[in-house]
Amino acid sequence: MSTTAQNTAKNATPKTAITPTRAEDFPEWYQQVIKAADLAENAPVRGCMIIKPYGYAIWENIQRLLDEKIKDCGVQNAYFPLLIPIEYLSKEAEHIDGFAKECAVVTHHRLEKDASGKLVPAPAAKLESPFVIRPTSETIIGEAMAGWINSYRDLPYKLNQWCNVMRWELRPRIFLRTTEFLWQEGHNAFASAEEARADALQMLQVYREFMENSLALPVFAGEKTADERFPGAIATYTVEAMMQDGKALQAGTSHDLGQTFAKSANIKFQGRDGQEHFAHTTSWGVSTRSIGGLIMTHGDDDGVMMPPAVAPYPVVIIPFIKDEAGRGAVIDHCQKLAAQIKSLGIRVHVDVTEERSSNKMWKYIKSGVPLRVEVGDKEMAAGQVTVTPRDLGKDAKQTITTDQFLAELPKTLAALQTRLLDRARKFRDAQVFDVKTVADIAEFYRADKMGLVRADAAMLNDPALVAVRKEFSLSPRCLPFDAPGTVLIGRSY
Amino acid sequence: MSTTAQNTAKNATPKTAITPTRAEDFPEWYQQVIKAADLAENAPVRGCMIIKPYGYAIWENIQRLLDEKIKDCGVQNAYFPLLIPIEYLSKEAEHIDGFAKECAVVTHHRLEKDASGKLVPAPAAKLESPFVIRPTSETIIGEAMAGWINSYRDLPYKLNQWCNVMRWELRPRIFLRTTEFLWQEGHNAFASAEEARADALQMLQVYREFMENSLALPVFAGEKTADERFPGAIATYTVEAMMQDGKALQAGTSHDLGQTFAKSANIKFQGRDGQEHFAHTTSWGVSTRSIGGLIMTHGDDDGVMMPPAVAPYPVVIIPFIKDEAGRGAVIDHCQKLAAQIKSLGIRVHVDVTEERSSNKMWKYIKSGVPLRVEVGDKEMAAGQVTVTPRDLGKDAKQTITTDQFLAELPKTLAALQTRLLDRARKFRDAQVFDVKTVADIAEFYRADKMGLVRADAAMLNDPALVAVRKEFSLSPRCLPFDAPGTVLIGRSY
Repeated sequence: MSTTAQNTAKNATPKTAITPTRAEDFPEWYQQVIKAADLAENAPVRGCMIIKPYGYAIWENIQRLLDEKIKDCGVQNAYFPLLIPIEYLSKEAEHIDGFAKECAVVTHHRLEKDASGKLVPAPAAKLESPFVIRPTSETIIGEAMAGWINSYRDLPYKLNQWCNVMRWELRPRIFLRTTEFLWQEGHNAFASAEEARADALQMLQVYREFMENSLALPVFAGEKTADERFPGAIATYTVEAMMQDGKALQAGTSHDLGQTFAKSANIKFQGRDGQEHFAHTTSWGVSTRSIGGLIMTHGDDDGVMMPPAVAPYPVVIIPFIKDEAGRGAVIDHCQKLAAQIKSLGIRVHVDVTEERSSNKMWKYIKSGVPLRVEVGDKEMAAGQVTVTPRDLGKDAKQTITTDQFLAELPKTLAALQTRLLDRARKFRDAQVFDVKTVADIAEFYRADKMGLVRADAAMLNDPALVAVRKEFSLSPRCLPFDAPGTVLIGRSY
Repeated sequence: MSTTAQNTAKNATPKTAITPTRAEDFPEWYQQVIKAADLAENAPVRGCMIIKPYGYAIWENIQRLLDEKIKDCGVQNAYFPLLIPIEYLSKEAEHIDGFAKECAVVTHHRLEKDASGKLVPAPAAKLESPFVIRPTSETIIGEAMAGWINSYRDLPYKLNQWCNVMRWELRPRIFLRTTEFLWQEGHNAFASAEEARADALQMLQVYREFMENSLALPVFAGEKTADERFPGAIATYTVEAMMQDGKALQAGTSHDLGQTFAKSANIKFQGRDGQEHFAHTTSWGVSTRSIGGLIMTHGDDDGVMMPPAVAPYPVVIIPFIKDEAGRGAVIDHCQKLAAQIKSLGIRVHVDVTEERSSNKMWKYIKSGVPLRVEVGDKEMAAGQVTVTPRDLGKDAKQTITTDQFLAELPKTLAALQTRLLDRARKFRDAQVFDVKTVADIAEFYRADKMGLVRADAAMLNDPALVAVRKEFSLSPRCLPFDAPGTVLIGRSY
């Protein structure tokens, strides 16, 4: 950008910490927000990412909160191998078609130097039968379950694993679509079709509550249409969030797999009737892409905004040092305040670096820390703190007594969390438009409008929809539970 | 085993839950203990394991406890890619030699059906340059650090990741030596050689305390001899535990990498002197093999024995049902007791299955639950519980009031934890033998004695040691810190 352009921009619009703004270029804004908050970066392995400490701390909080909810449903964690024999994939036709195109394949188990001294896969160490790196684990977990389940007394059988998976991405985007990602994948088995369906819906409800209460992401919960189902499922349920560019993001899915995988992996049990039956299974997952959803839902033109429940630290204390002689005393005071905050069970960070205070302030705005607490000589002497909530900014900055701050802190953070959810819900609801005809849809997107359209589900059978879907890259997002008989259609990540 | 043999065994020796006993066949006892406690099983992928819920719960406790200690050292968690470009390995000569022989190699990113309909790696999707699945991450983390570290102000830089790694094993043993395993790998960078050395020693101390306090594994802390070092390290420190067959198990290692990886990955910083310097790095790891160490240290001929600190549940409540009419009341009572135990921050399991009580008792003996609590009509009416500690067995069984049980529970578990450590330490110390000459070593192992020998470190230079090491599969385990100038030599896992 030329100096003239910079000046013009400065004069024309209020200064923002992130360039470009959301309105100027949403995809580039997303990349810049991630960089400014030091969340993650692209890895030297194409399509993969390095999750940096500040980004990984969000994932640790997601794991801790969601793991507890999953265990409350009677699910036990376990760990299954990274590598899956190709034969396993071959057993389920739809599953192959869905995943074979994007599997990383392990073909050798040793490297050696070739004639020129270059490291290459050792020809003598070629595997008789190659393995794929798990794109998901239905097949290998199903094979294990088949050995563990014998009788109806063994059911339900509920397993979950937190792990890495790999799906080769041709158009990777950090957090949203990466060749390797982290997730949890749950795999439950039941004696009846009804129980499996109820379980798939229950786990979706767990996801919905988690998205809303912890990530402050309002979601549409619903069922996927047949062509959007997980390969092999008889029903796929989804929670769909809406990003600030009006695109949907599938934030979690839960699949009723019927007897598909029970049949391919031979998961049989002796029923109360003494006969052998195939089990009915479900699978359900939430991944690191939810962090991308958080960023694109709550971020503003100054950077990311963290919901307190999953923020690496919901509170940062910034010591304001006027004279170097007083540094020790102010920092001491801040450390004591931090200890009091920790004793409330609230994560907190004290920035003791020698960076200028204004740089620190901008750093924590860009990294979206919910509450910034400034303490200088004056505050220290008066027993006060100056507090600024990230979402309301400097207009809401206030100086209050330390006692009041501590007494109200849990409530203050809860209120901030609620404001983020409410604001996101208000935005989302304003971007859902009812349409009557396929022509309405075309008109909507042709006018460059942002958001989702809601139509009678019967429209899915209208042949005219095909061309419009293609022209505007639309897909049915879900048949929402809260508006039966309708379908939500739109663009998506 | 024939019926006669079984009867003979029954008459000759007290009945044990595990066949064979440790004395009869230690390696097979190990496999049977793992099976009896339902900890893990071999996967359909050669050399890999499935960690079942009861085994994985131990790992979750290890993660929780060790992660806290690691973070207390100022280390931040992050996540780096599973796949490592071959060129990265090629940069460090010793590292290649150490790991190239056992790397799983990814060569394709898609499967397709061949002419016969069989799934094969798609020839068109062959990678220009293959990747290896990380055997360890010094190279890829070093490359990233090189981009993040610019000035002495950025140092120390401390990272850790919890992840899976893969080293192709020709002689796999569950938990101890598996092709895929789970671990944490820490990677720290410093401005000076002194700081790096101090860090490697500090992290070893963290491991030592963790092994002793949490896993109840007494360990020898010391330095590895030059030929046992991690490929590329200038010093490798280790904590060595001793198993009940007298073999050592390397339970954790911490490496001072000097400038080896800083030079190959170009981790440079501008020092206070204004000049560019290479950083000094360390790396340190503990893996799922520590679970194997726990089993082989504490298990007895009735199965595994869990130290309370990492036990999936240190307390199991077994309702004793006399008549079916009373079942509900007894189970209710047990659930309330469990809630009281949980409120003390202690994990507990209530077995509400309809299995026979004696079968339940044996189940929890085999799975090594520290305290078995039996509650029947009589106990319920009297406000009492009958408690049996796993390590002391039925001789220590006692019926006490529920109030007393709850009041003493934390102390009771702490005492049990200490007993396990003390017993293991006593065993270990009795199996370390001082030797003067190489001939003494040969005599010791030729007599089929179990344990380690301790010799003057100068013996490492004795050419006669080579043949004896080879004959008895011995290796120097470490130069122990607590006996300077000596070396511990023995067999190992």
